[in-house]
Amino acid sequence: MLVVMKATALPEEIQAVCEHIEQLGLRPHPLPGAERTAIGITGNKGEVDRGNLESLSGVADVIRVTRAYKLASREVKEEDTVVTFPGTDATIGGRNLAIVAGPCSIESRQQAFAIAEQVAASGAQFYRGGAFKPRTSPYAFQGLGLEALHIMAEIREAFGLRIVTEALDNESLELANEYADVIQIGARNMQNFSLLKRAGKLRKPVLLKRGLSATLDEFLMAAEYVMSEGNYQVILCERGVRTFADHTRNTLDLSIVPAVQSLSHLPILVDPSHGTGKRDKVLPLARAAVAVGADGIMVEVHNQPDKALSDGPQSIYPDQFATMMDELEQIGAVVHRSLPRGIRATSEAR
Amino acid sequence: MLVVMKATALPEEIQAVCEHIEQLGLRPHPLPGAERTAIGITGNKGEVDRGNLESLSGVADVIRVTRAYKLASREVKEEDTVVTFPGTDATIGGRNLAIVAGPCSIESRQQAFAIAEQVAASGAQFYRGGAFKPRTSPYAFQGLGLEALHIMAEIREAFGLRIVTEALDNESLELANEYADVIQIGARNMQNFSLLKRAGKLRKPVLLKRGLSATLDEFLMAAEYVMSEGNYQVILCERGVRTFADHTRNTLDLSIVPAVQSLSHLPILVDPSHGTGKRDKVLPLARAAVAVGADGIMVEVHNQPDKALSDGPQSIYPDQFATMMDELEQIGAVVHRSLPRGIRATSEAR
Amino acid sequence: MLVVMKATALPEEIQAVCEHIEQLGLRPHPLPGAERTAIGITGNKGEVDRGNLESLSGVADVIRVTRAYKLASREVKEEDTVVTFPGTDATIGGRNLAIVAGPCSIESRQQAFAIAEQVAASGAQFYRGGAFKPRTSPYAFQGLGLEALHIMAEIREAFGLRIVTEALDNESLELANEYADVIQIGARNMQNFSLLKRAGKLRKPVLLKRGLSATLDEFLMAAEYVMSEGNYQVILCERGVRTFADHTRNTLDLSIVPAVQSLSHLPILVDPSHGTGKRDKVLPLARAAVAVGADGIMVEVHNQPDKALSDGPQSIYPDQFATMMDELEQIGAVVHRSLPRGIRATSEAR
Amino acid sequence: MLVVMKATALPEEIQAVCEHIEQLGLRPHPLPGAERTAIGITGNKGEVDRGNLESLSGVADVIRVTRAYKLASREVKEEDTVVTFPGTDATIGGRNLAIVAGPCSIESRQQAFAIAEQVAASGAQFYRGGAFKPRTSPYAFQGLGLEALHIMAEIREAFGLRIVTEALDNESLELANEYADVIQIGARNMQNFSLLKRAGKLRKPVLLKRGLSATLDEFLMAAEYVMSEGNYQVILCERGVRTFADHTRNTLDLSIVPAVQSLSHLPILVDPSHGTGKRDKVLPLARAAVAVGADGIMVEVHNQPDKALSDGPQSIYPDQFATMMDELEQIGAVVHRSLPRGIRATSEAR
Repeated sequence: MLVVMKATALPEEIQAVCEHIEQLGLRPHPLPGAERTAIGITGNKGEVDRGNLESLSGVADVIRVTRAYKLASREVKEEDTVVTFPGTDATIGGRNLAIVAGPCSIESRQQAFAIAEQVAASGAQFYRGGAFKPRTSPYAFQGLGLEALHIMAEIREAFGLRIVTEALDNESLELANEYADVIQIGARNMQNFSLLKRAGKLRKPVLLKRGLSATLDEFLMAAEYVMSEGNYQVILCERGVRTFADHTRNTLDLSIVPAVQSLSHLPILVDPSHGTGKRDKVLPLARAAVAVGADGIMVEVHNQPDKALSDGPQSIYPDQFATMMDELEQIGAVVHRSLPRGIRATSEAR
Repeated sequence: MLVVMKATALPEEIQAVCEHIEQLGLRPHPLPGAERTAIGITGNKGEVDRGNLESLSGVADVIRVTRAYKLASREVKEEDTVVTFPGTDATIGGRNLAIVAGPCSIESRQQAFAIAEQVAASGAQFYRGGAFKPRTSPYAFQGLGLEALHIMAEIREAFGLRIVTEALDNESLELANEYADVIQIGARNMQNFSLLKRAGKLRKPVLLKRGLSATLDEFLMAAEYVMSEGNYQVILCERGVRTFADHTRNTLDLSIVPAVQSLSHLPILVDPSHGTGKRDKVLPLARAAVAVGADGIMVEVHNQPDKALSDGPQSIYPDQFATMMDELEQIGAVVHRSLPRGIRATSEAR
Repeated sequence: MLVVMKATALPEEIQAVCEHIEQLGLRPHPLPGAERTAIGITGNKGEVDRGNLESLSGVADVIRVTRAYKLASREVKEEDTVVTFPGTDATIGGRNLAIVAGPCSIESRQQAFAIAEQVAASGAQFYRGGAFKPRTSPYAFQGLGLEALHIMAEIREAFGLRIVTEALDNESLELANEYADVIQIGARNMQNFSLLKRAGKLRKPVLLKRGLSATLDEFLMAAEYVMSEGNYQVILCERGVRTFADHTRNTLDLSIVPAVQSLSHLPILVDPSHGTGKRDKVLPLARAAVAVGADGIMVEVHNQPDKALSDGPQSIYPDQFATMMDELEQIGAVVHRSLPRGIRATSEAR
Repeated sequence: MLVVMKATALPEEIQAVCEHIEQLGLRPHPLPGAERTAIGITGNKGEVDRGNLESLSGVADVIRVTRAYKLASREVKEEDTVVTFPGTDATIGGRNLAIVAGPCSIESRQQAFAIAEQVAASGAQFYRGGAFKPRTSPYAFQGLGLEALHIMAEIREAFGLRIVTEALDNESLELANEYADVIQIGARNMQNFSLLKRAGKLRKPVLLKRGLSATLDEFLMAAEYVMSEGNYQVILCERGVRTFADHTRNTLDLSIVPAVQSLSHLPILVDPSHGTGKRDKVLPLARAAVAVGADGIMVEVHNQPDKALSDGPQSIYPDQFATMMDELEQIGAVVHRSLPRGIRATSEAR
């Protein structure tokens, strides 16, 4: 159920409707739009008595939401969600292409800084780096943990990059919330509903990667888990799904980008590194991702991929990243997207 | 690396080898076998210097483990693992077929007891019931939680059934450890490595369901995560994988049963309820699972499936369960497995 | 559309209805059943005027067929189709389990006879052998062609085995029709509609293998192609589908057996050799196939699999085949199926 | 095995080497390159004695081909294959983007001409239209056959478009060879090896669509079947593969484009119509296909898709096609590809 407020509705009218919803034992989710606010309602087992709501002051309409996901649906919020980062001009969603780049894992201060400097110089606005790594083997490198977060906090200061890092559980979620700008939930945890709910209680943007065999509905329902707890800043990310095909590590499913955009207002990025698993396919698929209409790219960059502790074969070199940025800028222009020039211009001026 | 002790090795020799391993900064995993004990070693980054170990008293051999999973591998433990339940003759693994039956979710004391009575009467040794449910939608029934655990604890007392229930996170894991006999980790959490490690620190058997798109290696590596923390009682469970096929909810991959049995000593059950998603296919696939050599069956039974709060369409009726047990007993005989008669004989005598 | 004749309808009444249907520009398909004959109608673009038909002598009812496949549907023919082989007691469908065994390819007269003798001795009623091989590489062994057919014709004489061989195109179809008892259409040709139609014009039973990524509907529609041309003796065969799983060559989807049996009257076999691609998994999956309710097994047997020109790794040894037959007989008994004793008893008496 | 001729080798030396190869009982495949000719050798069971060959006049080197596919491999021919169409400036492969557009099926002269006029005006160089349709149901529209070929022959005359049509069997192959400029082998026939070999004996370019579950190796091996018979003008086409994903009809696997280009010299198109099955996803994926580096696009266009006899929901409108061409031209420029202006400029001048 969704309460659409009049364009002229006052804040106190919105507030009153929310309180009324709470008195019904339900949960209101006020979602401000460009012209007017809509208030999603969750917590109802069956039909809500709409008579009550329609008569409240400032209410324009009360409508039923037909999708299983509600807060993630375009029915509830027509305009694209744009995630902003106060104090910067970086955004995810909207006209700008968001570029998230960095190593799979933070391995050392030196490695992390070397890569950060180069991706910043080429125009990335976001730095990705793993502190807590979900590895298939319990005996593989599991990440530097808190030390990695400290290094990335320094990188934010030094280069103005916003930090994206993955959380695996309560402890790492709390730490990521403290140190990072965007909290990533990985593909293997896309249906870790307990983690999703906990991330929903935070107020940091959540980057949610598609599960290895998740359908579109399941993907949006996972986003709904986060949103149903009150955190509406969810960024989706396609990273390849598992199929019989063996020429890539995963099969990158770019068709999900327009599919998400037609059903949901949430932004969606594409990760061609995990999506292909092979360095020589990252650039072509990054170009394709922008061409298909993605809101940005998440890519693994390493200065010494042969020595990387994880994901070396799919990490591109910094100079490939620079080439990629040039190509993405050109393709972005065709689909009316641009790379913000701020950081890049500065770095080019050096 | 694996230290094989002599058949004549004394407990204190085994203890001394373990202590020596710890002094090397590594972790010993003593795995008693029918004839002799082997000690798995984890924690080594590269090669362990075997010279030291071979010269210790009671040591027969020191061998390299070639698989990525070690403790789960038959290289490390040749004999089948049989999980036992003190105070009962129920086992998982070995000559007996383990039958786990019950509703998807515990919905009420009355429902839970009605089903428990019927599955016990037909010979089930284990009762499954969801207290914490991982649902695709945040708005779907999420389980009765602690109340469900209390009900199942009563069922254990009343019918002698061992209790299997799923844990989703730290809180439910702690509760499941307190109330249940087997802790289930669901398919969606198969690579929730944080949960696996935490379950590995407990001493309750862990039933690990195969992920929706997990390869055999990933499945055994997930088991290895639990075992690497010291909990060696892991029970695997095939429950169908995701494919293009649309005549069933999932595609039940029975070939993984002999594949697991050739590589690992861990027992493996089959869940034909989730594996097909359709009531009329549960019995045929349950028969097939025993014929292929599975160590048992996990099946959803409901007395009123049309009213079930979850998974109704794939739940069988109690009388279908009784028929299934008769068929499984006959097929079990062909593959040298038997249904323990204890509970059943009693119930038949009524 | 389906015309159901009265149980008392005379042959000339059935004939008259067929002629009437032809006069409407449509095609009649008389399908005799145990109690009465039904006449399927194909060729209609939209609705057939049923008024005409209902008033004809001997007609009990005229009903609409709701499935996209008609002649293959249980709506049109309720009883199971049993394919018989005049002059033998071998059948496919019905109470007997049909066992088709033999080498992937006929490599030489000596090899073919050696295997035939052994599988006949163990109770197989059908001999499979490739004369024309659909190989992934144009440079791989493509089969002995006509020579292989001659050898198999001799085997029929010598051992009383019925011959199953694959046809790839017009030429091999004509030859298979001349020399074999069952014409196999392989998985890669399941949607070679031209070949299916041509096989439909013959009167030899057609064994149709499921395509590597065929849905249930597509599988039955392929059978419908054969039947729509007047050949109603179609035998289906599950042989594994393509998925992400890498522990077997294909993923054997046993759930399609009950799915087919609920929608169609056609018999269905299972091929655990292609379904797994690994010798050590053939026996377990053959047992599972009979347990799930399949009408029989198609299996590759080779006396020297290491030297086989194709499919060696998935071919079982003759003594494994003998063991398999013993196990299938026992499991068959549980699901009310039996192995016909004719050939076997004789061979045991030697 | 591959014989690399010297850059200075004379035609008669090439001829002499070919004859020598034939005398060895093998088949020579002279493949002219920009700088020199290579001669592929097929028909050898094992190792060819290279001593003989190296000593022949004009031979620079004799090298072993390591891939299972030989003639399709870049090892044998380093430069990209460019398929040309005498009398036009249309090409497939090379710097130009090839655009193949038209209806799924030719339904009438009027429909076919209306669409042809519009796609020609927007710059397509190739016209696709089904005359013989491989339909899942035997009762669905199967194409107009010869009549459709006549219509398309007229279209070639009227608009200068080259004609692409599918062949299903011997008869339609012969007709397509007579009437069309490019013979399409559809996804369902990708491993119809008999049809592939027969197409290999022709001298018309063959457009080979990837099978629904074909691996990269199988795809290239299917091309090899055509080439091994002497027809080296093979054009590959990605059209989506079958996966669990349900938001599109198939999952378009764009990563196969760079994968093919690294292993093979053959051109590769992308079909976003079958690849998505949904009109609103065709343009985004067409853009992505050009961005990823495809040699062109094959797309279904219909003037009245709601009335189309096949594939209506995935056919785009002519004005969407015009928009698509504008976007592809811009994206093409980024990846150094251009749309030939010939036909288009003319049509714009009208």
